[in-house]
Amino acid sequence: MSTLNNLVAYFYTTLAILILMGHFPCISSAKTSQRCTYIIHMDKTLMPTVFTSHHLWYTSIVDSLSSTSTPAASFNDPKSMPPSSPKVLYSYDKALHGFSALLSADELQSLKKHPACVIAYKETKGTIDTTRSIDFLSLNPHKGLWPASYYGEEVIIGVIDTGVWPESQSFRDDGMPPVPSKWKGACEPGQDFNTSMCNRKLIGARCFNKGFKAAHPKVKLNMNSARDTVGHGTHTASTATGAFVDGVSFFGYAPGTARGVAPRARVAVYKVIWEYGLHSSDILAAIDQAISDGVDVISISLGFNGLPLYKDPVAIGSFAAMEHGVLLSSSAGNAGPLLGTLHNGIPWALTVAAGTIDRQFSGMLSLGNGHTILGWSLFPASALVEKVSLKFDEKLSACNSSTLLSKAGPNEIIICTDMGTTLDQMSMIIGLKVAAAIFISDDPIDNNLLGGLPFPGIIINSKEGRSVVKYAKTTKRPWASMRFQQTFVGSRTAPAAAVYTSRGPSQSYSGILKPDLMAPGSQILAAFVPSTEAASIGNNILLSSEYALLSGTSMACPHASGVAALLKAAHPTWSPTAIKSAMMTTANSLDNSGNPIKDDGEARKPASPLAMGSGQVDPNRALDPGLVYDATPQDYVNLLCSMNITKSQMLTITKSSKYHCLNTSSDLNYPSFIALYDNETKTRVKTFQRTVTNVGPGGVATTTYKASMIVPVGTRVTVNPQILVFKKQYEKQSYSLTIKYGRNHKGKVSFGSLVWEEVGGKHSVRSPIAVSPMMDSVEDVKWNSLRWASWPKTARSRVAAVEGLGHGEFRFSSKTASNV
Amino acid sequence: MSTLNNLVAYFYTTLAILILMGHFPCISSAKTSQRCTYIIHMDKTLMPTVFTSHHLWYTSIVDSLSSTSTPAASFNDPKSMPPSSPKVLYSYDKALHGFSALLSADELQSLKKHPACVIAYKETKGTIDTTRSIDFLSLNPHKGLWPASYYGEEVIIGVIDTGVWPESQSFRDDGMPPVPSKWKGACEPGQDFNTSMCNRKLIGARCFNKGFKAAHPKVKLNMNSARDTVGHGTHTASTATGAFVDGVSFFGYAPGTARGVAPRARVAVYKVIWEYGLHSSDILAAIDQAISDGVDVISISLGFNGLPLYKDPVAIGSFAAMEHGVLLSSSAGNAGPLLGTLHNGIPWALTVAAGTIDRQFSGMLSLGNGHTILGWSLFPASALVEKVSLKFDEKLSACNSSTLLSKAGPNEIIICTDMGTTLDQMSMIIGLKVAAAIFISDDPIDNNLLGGLPFPGIIINSKEGRSVVKYAKTTKRPWASMRFQQTFVGSRTAPAAAVYTSRGPSQSYSGILKPDLMAPGSQILAAFVPSTEAASIGNNILLSSEYALLSGTSMACPHASGVAALLKAAHPTWSPTAIKSAMMTTANSLDNSGNPIKDDGEARKPASPLAMGSGQVDPNRALDPGLVYDATPQDYVNLLCSMNITKSQMLTITKSSKYHCLNTSSDLNYPSFIALYDNETKTRVKTFQRTVTNVGPGGVATTTYKASMIVPVGTRVTVNPQILVFKKQYEKQSYSLTIKYGRNHKGKVSFGSLVWEEVGGKHSVRSPIAVSPMMDSVEDVKWNSLRWASWPKTARSRVAAVEGLGHGEFRFSSKTASNV
Repeated sequence: MSTLNNLVAYFYTTLAILILMGHFPCISSAKTSQRCTYIIHMDKTLMPTVFTSHHLWYTSIVDSLSSTSTPAASFNDPKSMPPSSPKVLYSYDKALHGFSALLSADELQSLKKHPACVIAYKETKGTIDTTRSIDFLSLNPHKGLWPASYYGEEVIIGVIDTGVWPESQSFRDDGMPPVPSKWKGACEPGQDFNTSMCNRKLIGARCFNKGFKAAHPKVKLNMNSARDTVGHGTHTASTATGAFVDGVSFFGYAPGTARGVAPRARVAVYKVIWEYGLHSSDILAAIDQAISDGVDVISISLGFNGLPLYKDPVAIGSFAAMEHGVLLSSSAGNAGPLLGTLHNGIPWALTVAAGTIDRQFSGMLSLGNGHTILGWSLFPASALVEKVSLKFDEKLSACNSSTLLSKAGPNEIIICTDMGTTLDQMSMIIGLKVAAAIFISDDPIDNNLLGGLPFPGIIINSKEGRSVVKYAKTTKRPWASMRFQQTFVGSRTAPAAAVYTSRGPSQSYSGILKPDLMAPGSQILAAFVPSTEAASIGNNILLSSEYALLSGTSMACPHASGVAALLKAAHPTWSPTAIKSAMMTTANSLDNSGNPIKDDGEARKPASPLAMGSGQVDPNRALDPGLVYDATPQDYVNLLCSMNITKSQMLTITKSSKYHCLNTSSDLNYPSFIALYDNETKTRVKTFQRTVTNVGPGGVATTTYKASMIVPVGTRVTVNPQILVFKKQYEKQSYSLTIKYGRNHKGKVSFGSLVWEEVGGKHSVRSPIAVSPMMDSVEDVKWNSLRWASWPKTARSRVAAVEGLGHGEFRFSSKTASNV
Repeated sequence: MSTLNNLVAYFYTTLAILILMGHFPCISSAKTSQRCTYIIHMDKTLMPTVFTSHHLWYTSIVDSLSSTSTPAASFNDPKSMPPSSPKVLYSYDKALHGFSALLSADELQSLKKHPACVIAYKETKGTIDTTRSIDFLSLNPHKGLWPASYYGEEVIIGVIDTGVWPESQSFRDDGMPPVPSKWKGACEPGQDFNTSMCNRKLIGARCFNKGFKAAHPKVKLNMNSARDTVGHGTHTASTATGAFVDGVSFFGYAPGTARGVAPRARVAVYKVIWEYGLHSSDILAAIDQAISDGVDVISISLGFNGLPLYKDPVAIGSFAAMEHGVLLSSSAGNAGPLLGTLHNGIPWALTVAAGTIDRQFSGMLSLGNGHTILGWSLFPASALVEKVSLKFDEKLSACNSSTLLSKAGPNEIIICTDMGTTLDQMSMIIGLKVAAAIFISDDPIDNNLLGGLPFPGIIINSKEGRSVVKYAKTTKRPWASMRFQQTFVGSRTAPAAAVYTSRGPSQSYSGILKPDLMAPGSQILAAFVPSTEAASIGNNILLSSEYALLSGTSMACPHASGVAALLKAAHPTWSPTAIKSAMMTTANSLDNSGNPIKDDGEARKPASPLAMGSGQVDPNRALDPGLVYDATPQDYVNLLCSMNITKSQMLTITKSSKYHCLNTSSDLNYPSFIALYDNETKTRVKTFQRTVTNVGPGGVATTTYKASMIVPVGTRVTVNPQILVFKKQYEKQSYSLTIKYGRNHKGKVSFGSLVWEEVGGKHSVRSPIAVSPMMDSVEDVKWNSLRWASWPKTARSRVAAVEGLGHGEFRFSSKTASNV
């Protein structure tokens, strides 16, 4: 890493600190006298009627603990003294019934004895996952989802993230009608933030840091308000809902009009990410509040690795959201390309994978012999490299000797040959006085990974590299010119599943195929925080930008959240599950060349559903899916009943005894199919029951759907019946799908699909079928760096590239992955 | 200069070579055997009728010289061998009657004996002189000159300069009607230029380099076509005629919509400036061609220093232009602020001085104590300097020790105190690893002079500097933040006469007050050549831009050319002289604070007419001037008759014997007044006769004008009559103005004005009156560097600043001034 330090200039302020800190002391400490934050789920039906509010009840319970224990004053530094009594941080009522509190181990034990205490557990820290994309999704003003939803004008998206930069042009409310009357949220004042910063676009801003402050009592918050100082939240919020802003770019790359997926939707931000991370008590508070405030969709580009559903605040919160008709859209994580790396694999939430888009950021290299080569570059300025002498020297061009390199001058372009160490080579070039550098590499250090290059440089492949070296060696006075800030659209085969996107099966529950679908996540241009570094030049010049290119599932998630919001506007009565189904069954499994979407993490073989779910979200088709796979809260409870968890654990999610386990079933009515095998599996038969609802246009006589299939290699699949006939709108029809499968060679995934094709109609309802190796169960697995060590070298170097070249986002999650 | 080398990064490619080369060998060589280019004026009335064209006649004359002499083969290098016979370069027929030819001394002597030879002289080299400005001139679509002229749609401006970058968006012809039928020009193909690059906007492109190639037979032209490789011509052409282009800026400064003064006028470019300069034979050919092609206005941002009118190609060409109804608009030069430095002081041409505009490019400095300072900066990127440690150390802050400075680190802002060597300090900072630098200086190194700063730096004044130093010295951990790319409009008192703008009296003829008027010339944003450096970062990173900020009278000239074109469109029957009069008498002598326009070269005292002529051009007022001072070609000849020149010398300008000297008069009917004194002058009385033509609206009963005056200090001025009554449109009335004046203290200029105010009407017709020291007559003076040495130190340091900080333009003319 040390040689990369110079390249790692991005996001170094806040997020790097988070990375280096690792866990906060509460978790690693064994001191019983120390207070930590616990999440306590309560049975609210046991609340005595004397309490006028649940908050008073919870407070009285915690206050009563105070007398039972006195923590030892064992700290030398008075600032780090724990509070002298246990303390309620938040009361929750929507996301869960319960509260979070700072408790000592003794207090916790006392509390657990309380008859209404369902479960209590230590809070955990999560990770955050990090525009052509709108066009690439075919959103347009003339037809389809945008006009049908009036750009989402009546819907509200709650974005739970790092806050917002309210001055961003992407949150201007020009021409927007008044805030919908259903809105019950607030624009909370705070540091550098006042209520007048909200408007008809940015309708709410709150922050949640009691959990963070409890864990880090010594830390003075850098920005104690909903103001974003990182850029992540501003980026995701504007990706989902940003207004039209003309003439933006990332230092000349990706120039054009920025806008979100739902450009007239309202946005409310809930800041939960602070200097040293994100805490489950804060996340729960944010989801709880967002539901109360009246959001229609929650977008949450963060996740918790290795937690069971009943301890995962996103799982708990999203169940409540689902109950309230709110779809929670979440990011799959950036820990790919290995299988089983996915977080937020929650049956009742939407889990979004990241794909590439068809845009390329290039440097154009012209040689004196007339040959022109299009390479990769993201140098953040209009560097002028015009007819400059080209230097090739066997020793110098290894680009591993600073002594040799320092002899190259400002009137020379140096060539760095492919030594498999391109990133190290790059770090040696920074600060040199050379005019420019050419890197030869076949590593996928393409613009999905590069966050920027702090000097004029272009990366070309080895074939092109040979011709450049030959020209430089055989010509008397070789020279070259370069052009930067070249953006090409439509030139790449896209989408592809991004290298980094986390793969299923879900850590939380592998019986549901996750991720659900894919959305654009690589090199997304959206609003950014101008006070945070967005690029750099040389050793010491940091640059800011109001719009930045970021990559990650964090960027994919708000695309899907925006689509969900538009669907909610177009179909206000649809359940979150129906909206999710519409998005999944209409997702596109083909790329822009008409071939199956490829996987950048699998040598560009066809991407499996464990990488991309049902495929790339297709907003306009999702508007009219024909059929949907719906499910009620009780259906999800039936699934929970089938899991090997206690009643208390289940209640942390379901909260209420209004649900029952009479119809226990692991076969949720889900619009995708996954069959798992382990090393013992020989031949297995698994049958799925599904019910689809006809949401096609009413008034049509009869609609007939016919099954067609692509059967996964090595399996036999049958569907019964193969014809579904609907006589009216909202009519339901059921079918079963049976798959006979065995263990696959080398633990590979095989996959196919079932498509219900409307006979004589346009609807086509597709569900992926995956046969996957079973991953270690989540409760037991140490989700650790060993996994990384077992990666093939190329895969590791890719992630190193991501870490090295700027996206704090990537570094964030990958480092967390390797630290946890 | 050596310490400034690093700062002098701009325009270094082409123009710097020109500067360093000095004269081309022909002029300095005494070898009679060497052929040089001569301009030969011929009496065309003597052309024998056997010749079907003047060109054949001239060729036959030159061919006949061939037999009379054989140049000695005295060159070792065959490439530098002169042609083996004399050669006609151009035949001229509009700008002059005659031709240019490569002749040996012997051949020249033979030619001079030809009865039709009027005069023959060696050609000379010239110098070239280098947007808020459109708004600042109050041009707007709603009223005034723009709508009245339909943005100049039917007029053609010929721009004689470095060519054009035809791909610039400023030359797009979207929505333009077909080319006017009067156009007889061409779009000449050449290197990287084909005829399809012209369109309805850029209607013509030619280049003229026979004179240049003859003088530099060994030089291979870098770009043998009308394509601009320098940027100067693209900038001036787009300033005069550029179409509306949204979203442009100079690296984030001056963001907005670029457009020319006459955004729908057509432009034809005539490239005359080449690697090693501009030659009078080429200039004459360009003017000659432009007149033939049918341009309405010629814009020429270059000039020849120290030439009498009859040898000055701009004077000769502009006389012909005037005869053909074409106004030639020229730049005054960038050799100010000393008096008598002006070129293009041609009675029948428009001579344009440069003024500042009301825009400021700033860096914002915020200290840790909450204090915020607005300084000057043009760092060409969005540098992020956020809460960085502020370093003040008595020794280091002298910023004159590279050893000390190299110890400052990337996490420090250094303060450079005012040592009177700010530019040297700046050159030491380049390449250091400091985060940023603060320069304290009261020198006028403001944004009129800065072309850019290759590192994050802000210049603040000494008062603000003291508070910064105090904060840094007295605070434990001082820090500061900076913001760049700050553009403020309306914040400055403007216009002011720019420091650099050349001052009258005219070198060519001091009896006419020059310059004529002032137009915006400082920090003008216009189209540029992307293949030429526009800014730089650090030691080695050069940046290009499609739009650039340039300063100089070269930039002022095309503003005036554009206004002239609009007036021509609004008043197609007006003579060039009437157009010029309308622009002069309506020019504004007050700045945006309502006070007299100041002179930045005279410690911001009120600017004299020798700096700004009649004042800042006011396009909308010029549309309706009320009265004009017109003159016929014969009137100009009457003036020439009064000069101490020979008949042959006069014929070089007038060409034809159709003019006579029956009414010799030095009292041209000019819309301004100048009275000169020398050391011998005690008391003098000078009387001017003037005739004004009523161009106010017709159909009005009677229009009465009343004289009002501001009498120059130390003079007595009388006007007779003091009332002028006009009974109809186009009626003429005459008056006389008599000034009694003496020698002024210390050779100062005193000045005032005569205004004819319409009684009960809106017209106000103003003429400046200047009493000026007489300058050495042009024929005798060596226009040399001694003049520079005699400047006050501050003035020199200002010009050094101009030279040092980027505007090749400035370096160009100022170095020429000191070299010639």
